[in-house]
Amino acid sequence: MSSTAGQVIRCKAAVAWEAEKPLVIDEIDVAPPQKMEVRVKIHFTSLCHTDVYFWEAKGQHPLFPRILGHEAGGIVESIGEGVTELKPGDKVLTVFTGECGECRHCKSAESNMCDLLRINTDRGAMISDGKSRFSKDGKPIYHFLGTSSFSQYTVLHAGCVAKINPEAPLDKVCVLSCGISTGMGATLNVAKPTKGSTVAVFGLGTVGLAAAEGARIAGASRIIGIDMNPNRFKEATKFGVTEFVNPKDHNKPVQEVLVEMTDGGVDRCIECTGNVGAMISAFECVHDGWGVAVLVGVPNKDDSFKTNPINLLNERTLKGTFFGNYKPRTDIPGVVEKYMKKELEVEKFITHKVNLSDINKAFDYMMKGESLRCIINMDA
Amino acid sequence: MSSTAGQVIRCKAAVAWEAEKPLVIDEIDVAPPQKMEVRVKIHFTSLCHTDVYFWEAKGQHPLFPRILGHEAGGIVESIGEGVTELKPGDKVLTVFTGECGECRHCKSAESNMCDLLRINTDRGAMISDGKSRFSKDGKPIYHFLGTSSFSQYTVLHAGCVAKINPEAPLDKVCVLSCGISTGMGATLNVAKPTKGSTVAVFGLGTVGLAAAEGARIAGASRIIGIDMNPNRFKEATKFGVTEFVNPKDHNKPVQEVLVEMTDGGVDRCIECTGNVGAMISAFECVHDGWGVAVLVGVPNKDDSFKTNPINLLNERTLKGTFFGNYKPRTDIPGVVEKYMKKELEVEKFITHKVNLSDINKAFDYMMKGESLRCIINMDA
Repeated sequence: MSSTAGQVIRCKAAVAWEAEKPLVIDEIDVAPPQKMEVRVKIHFTSLCHTDVYFWEAKGQHPLFPRILGHEAGGIVESIGEGVTELKPGDKVLTVFTGECGECRHCKSAESNMCDLLRINTDRGAMISDGKSRFSKDGKPIYHFLGTSSFSQYTVLHAGCVAKINPEAPLDKVCVLSCGISTGMGATLNVAKPTKGSTVAVFGLGTVGLAAAEGARIAGASRIIGIDMNPNRFKEATKFGVTEFVNPKDHNKPVQEVLVEMTDGGVDRCIECTGNVGAMISAFECVHDGWGVAVLVGVPNKDDSFKTNPINLLNERTLKGTFFGNYKPRTDIPGVVEKYMKKELEVEKFITHKVNLSDINKAFDYMMKGESLRCIINMDA
Repeated sequence: MSSTAGQVIRCKAAVAWEAEKPLVIDEIDVAPPQKMEVRVKIHFTSLCHTDVYFWEAKGQHPLFPRILGHEAGGIVESIGEGVTELKPGDKVLTVFTGECGECRHCKSAESNMCDLLRINTDRGAMISDGKSRFSKDGKPIYHFLGTSSFSQYTVLHAGCVAKINPEAPLDKVCVLSCGISTGMGATLNVAKPTKGSTVAVFGLGTVGLAAAEGARIAGASRIIGIDMNPNRFKEATKFGVTEFVNPKDHNKPVQEVLVEMTDGGVDRCIECTGNVGAMISAFECVHDGWGVAVLVGVPNKDDSFKTNPINLLNERTLKGTFFGNYKPRTDIPGVVEKYMKKELEVEKFITHKVNLSDINKAFDYMMKGESLRCIINMDA
């Protein structure tokens, strides 16, 4: 038992006090974990677009002050009542969506969309009592995605914590807790390309590059990257992308370009932009008879996906995925093992590193499109 | 070698001389099979909606005179040059779509949409020389779907002939060459429900009832039939349907009714009407996390399938199938074996039987909605 167990811990956190205003490094209080909760000392976290999106507070109900952050690695400091599968000292990744282990989804081999702990972007408090564990001067600060990793200590539901190999370097594997697993899982768990096949990836940001990395791991022989930004191609080659298509370079729909390039269509396609037009193109560029299109990018809520149903009748498959179909606690430790065995390369996703005190630089890098992943050292 | 090999055979056939006019039983001449072709003596054939659709000649380029018919069983009479996998005396089913064994589709484990022999409703002649093997008084009569089973003898590409168990009764298993395999395969090969799951079937005609039969064989515990015609429910119970929903009985979209009935959605859904609204309902009624909707019914060519992409992102799958994903020559013999082992019941699909001379009665039964399958005895 650590000396801090059961005590309030005072530590540093980067607090978002207002939308689009720089985060402030504050001393905050972190209450002890309650029933089925754990408190984790965060060592490294990285910045994901989703953090920026909720910091900008465009299009969703704003909750401030809030501690953002969800891609992170740390060490369990203490556990609350009823927690049996984690103990102080365990090395863990935080996950923005959980696995209670008891619901129909958790019991289904096919789903990772836990009824209890499924991502909820509107929730700013713990499930058990609807309260925050964070405060400053006695006033609560909202949680984010059940993780809030931009704090040196955070409290999570035990179902949102994946216990990983104690040898894993947290400054590397912290990036596996969201975007990279999402993209790679979309390819490996859902699209499932066979060796030698042709895979197209729409959108060459971190998630798309992770989808390409998945295709490389699966042994695809052609990996076609589609993006409107030609500057992304050079970087994409590091992730196995062999060909690049910029829709702006063509006078016809990009699906037609891809069908011509591949004598009838690609075997698998992964859509990582969230643009509904790209989703339609991603589906219509797969080969009849066996083509599978997987949607990863999150659409606007009023979007409508449209296609001629004969495209489906000709034995094409359209499916979506959430978090790469990985069950957070069951499967993410295995993703870390893939890195430990050098099957998966994560270093190439890490383009920047900053200390907690410079966390706002991570936001700048991402908004300028300069970074893939910027690691934030929470101890420095 | 049969005594008729290499000779023109004169026999009876039911010829469609004009759209929507009763077929005429004529004496016709059937030329010998050419390279990669076989001539088959048809013993039993059944009537399918597709025959009626092309006889009505609504919406497609009309080809008359034509010998319709495609669901049939017979015995190989003679073979053309290059045919090695069939010999005179083999018991076979005719198939409206073929399997050349050489193309990318045939070599793919995932597809049955042969590049060479895929269904072609516009073709009225043999592939090898573009000529018909049927004539009357020297004037050619068009083929239909490469099968033309409403003739006592017909010529087919060897890739459109499935060799089956010599013990199989042709008056029963002839129905396995199209609609029943299409529906059953959609469930067993594509939707793949697990034991104890809930399956919905849109449209309770022969194909939909075969999809339900597939769900029964797979061990589904709830099979929900959806149809606008309440008279179909009683018959549907024979095929394992446990509950019936008539969209006309509800003031809200039928997908909402189904989601409520099943605490979140069905596990698998098979759409067998071809109505694009039903397709959308069929997709939107499957459970998030694991639901799979399979489209079987053929849409109008200008239809547009529309849904909110978030329905996909929540881990639903939408796929189409053609001929139940069965490869005609490779897999259909196994479907016949399912019947021989009494796993699959075909008798309940056979509601009527007529002799060739009464073939127009089969059309009447179908158009009045009285029949599922009417068997036509080609020898009588």
